Amino acid sequence: MKAKLPLLYAIALVFALILSSLTIAQAGDSLPSWNDGKAKQSIVAFVKKVTTVGSPDYVPPAERIATFDNDGTLWSEQPMYFQLFFALDRVKALTPQHPEWKEKEPFASLLKGDAKAALAGGLKAVLEIVMATHGGMTTTEFEKIVKIWIATARHPKTKRLYTEMVYQPMLELLAFLRANGFKTFIVSGGGIEFMRPWAEAVYGIPPEQIVGSSIKTKFEMRDNGPVLVRLPEMNFIDDKEGKPVGINSHIGRRPVAAFGNSDGDLQMLQWSTAGRGLRYGLLVHHTDAEREWAYDRKSHIGRLDKALDEAEEKGWTVVDMKRDWKVIYPSVK
Amino acid sequence: MKAKLPLLYAIALVFALILSSLTIAQAGDSLPSWNDGKAKQSIVAFVKKVTTVGSPDYVPPAERIATFDNDGTLWSEQPMYFQLFFALDRVKALTPQHPEWKEKEPFASLLKGDAKAALAGGLKAVLEIVMATHGGMTTTEFEKIVKIWIATARHPKTKRLYTEMVYQPMLELLAFLRANGFKTFIVSGGGIEFMRPWAEAVYGIPPEQIVGSSIKTKFEMRDNGPVLVRLPEMNFIDDKEGKPVGINSHIGRRPVAAFGNSDGDLQMLQWSTAGRGLRYGLLVHHTDAEREWAYDRKSHIGRLDKALDEAEEKGWTVVDMKRDWKVIYPSVK
Repeated sequence: MKAKLPLLYAIALVFALILSSLTIAQAGDSLPSWNDGKAKQSIVAFVKKVTTVGSPDYVPPAERIATFDNDGTLWSEQPMYFQLFFALDRVKALTPQHPEWKEKEPFASLLKGDAKAALAGGLKAVLEIVMATHGGMTTTEFEKIVKIWIATARHPKTKRLYTEMVYQPMLELLAFLRANGFKTFIVSGGGIEFMRPWAEAVYGIPPEQIVGSSIKTKFEMRDNGPVLVRLPEMNFIDDKEGKPVGINSHIGRRPVAAFGNSDGDLQMLQWSTAGRGLRYGLLVHHTDAEREWAYDRKSHIGRLDKALDEAEEKGWTVVDMKRDWKVIYPSVK
Repeated sequence: MKAKLPLLYAIALVFALILSSLTIAQAGDSLPSWNDGKAKQSIVAFVKKVTTVGSPDYVPPAERIATFDNDGTLWSEQPMYFQLFFALDRVKALTPQHPEWKEKEPFASLLKGDAKAALAGGLKAVLEIVMATHGGMTTTEFEKIVKIWIATARHPKTKRLYTEMVYQPMLELLAFLRANGFKTFIVSGGGIEFMRPWAEAVYGIPPEQIVGSSIKTKFEMRDNGPVLVRLPEMNFIDDKEGKPVGINSHIGRRPVAAFGNSDGDLQMLQWSTAGRGLRYGLLVHHTDAEREWAYDRKSHIGRLDKALDEAEEKGWTVVDMKRDWKVIYPSVK
């Protein structure tokens, strides 16, 4: 019996592999929320080429790296980045300890509910808010705060949980890529520790496959054991030129496919698609004012301008949200 | 036929999974280069406990993170870190462009072949050498230089390729853990970009599962496309207190098992074993002057002093290389 086990195991495995490869032919069915247009066809065609053994475009499984922006690509980002709603709630909770915030920008505007004014200082203002509200505690404490918030806070317009504002077509795309041997990563300008506590349950992307902006942390030995303390000091900004840097630092391979929605993703798409062999770039264009939001070249959040021009030039796929997606969000029970 | 495929596939998969779980009982055979002593027994017992469904110590596959130091834990590190041999060869190659190095420490000592004097400045001197020799080129160029060096350079004492000075028992341990659902990571004070070009072939550890020290890189758009330029500026030192920081940044989960050999790994073992539930810490003690090197509390490289005391206190496994390992290096054809 003992000698037979490895053989039986091998046979079963081969059987499973053959059947799993047969399912690639049914690829189209894996993207039921995508209308059958150019965008869907380009995805399916790309995946077929890079996974077909013997194809000139074949990519071995280990190199099938796909990177996804988060805000505006996997979930909504209007009227402001969802992490800013989290930060605003933290500012409110912490204001008793920081009376000076009532007079000091960008906190003063945030407390008045004027997100636009708070954001006038751009990414730096955002990061100032984030550092003041995300630092000064251990990584474990921060994780707990995020978990409680993400399970309870609701979007002011849709009244949905924020994790119910992820894009159903993109969830299907993530699963489709993984079913075809891809390793899916998030590469976001958002906080790495803000995404990790919930991204595995929501996107199927584990903490070690999340790249994002970060503040510095420091190891400390306390009486009840070691902790990592979050310092109010920027470590890395994973946006624009930072995205290829973050990809290189965390992944160490050039992605074969990259997915974004704004000029903040331009360098990630440039870097990914400049690699040798077949590559794939995709931009989500927010064109659906009715079911989501419509914005592009002039938006203060998620501006899509240069990248939209370059998409045409480079042959990247542009998803027209209104035309290409049957549904936007998952149905909520 | 079509409807039957998913069912057949599921049956085949269940069959494969059942058989694969049966193979756990044969675990001991997966470590043939380990003598049957306390060290081997503790590894096998730990893996059995965390992988047995229903066991109070069960750990779900997604959380089976194991981190390994590299120098002195997965390969040798005497008479100096192998990356320093690489740096020395780079110093020699670049000296025509840097005549000042002949007078300037730590370069002057390195060029005279006096590694001990060059290392007198500690990790900072090492990093100065590394930055001067590892910066000023693109990531792609650096990768090529490392690949050529690692395929040709030989150790001064053993005359082996450096990748032939990895520890056979540790290769088996890495494979054994992976066969039991663990994700294996390197967490090394060595350069992340120095390890990535060869670690996958040698250890089976992909680039995205390597954490190490790094210099800063910068995205640049050149005429023939985008590049990442390596700057002569330190980004992160992944040693001592830096190891839990690097683990948190790259992995975002606390390891359930950590493997090291020196005081540089102490904080990684403290951090990993302080987590809830069953945890495992192991130190490789270099006790074999005949087959490898013997050093511990007073060594200038890979000092093992505080961590050796703490291992006893905390119940971490200490591998006695001479007693516990049947062979040190893989046999070379």
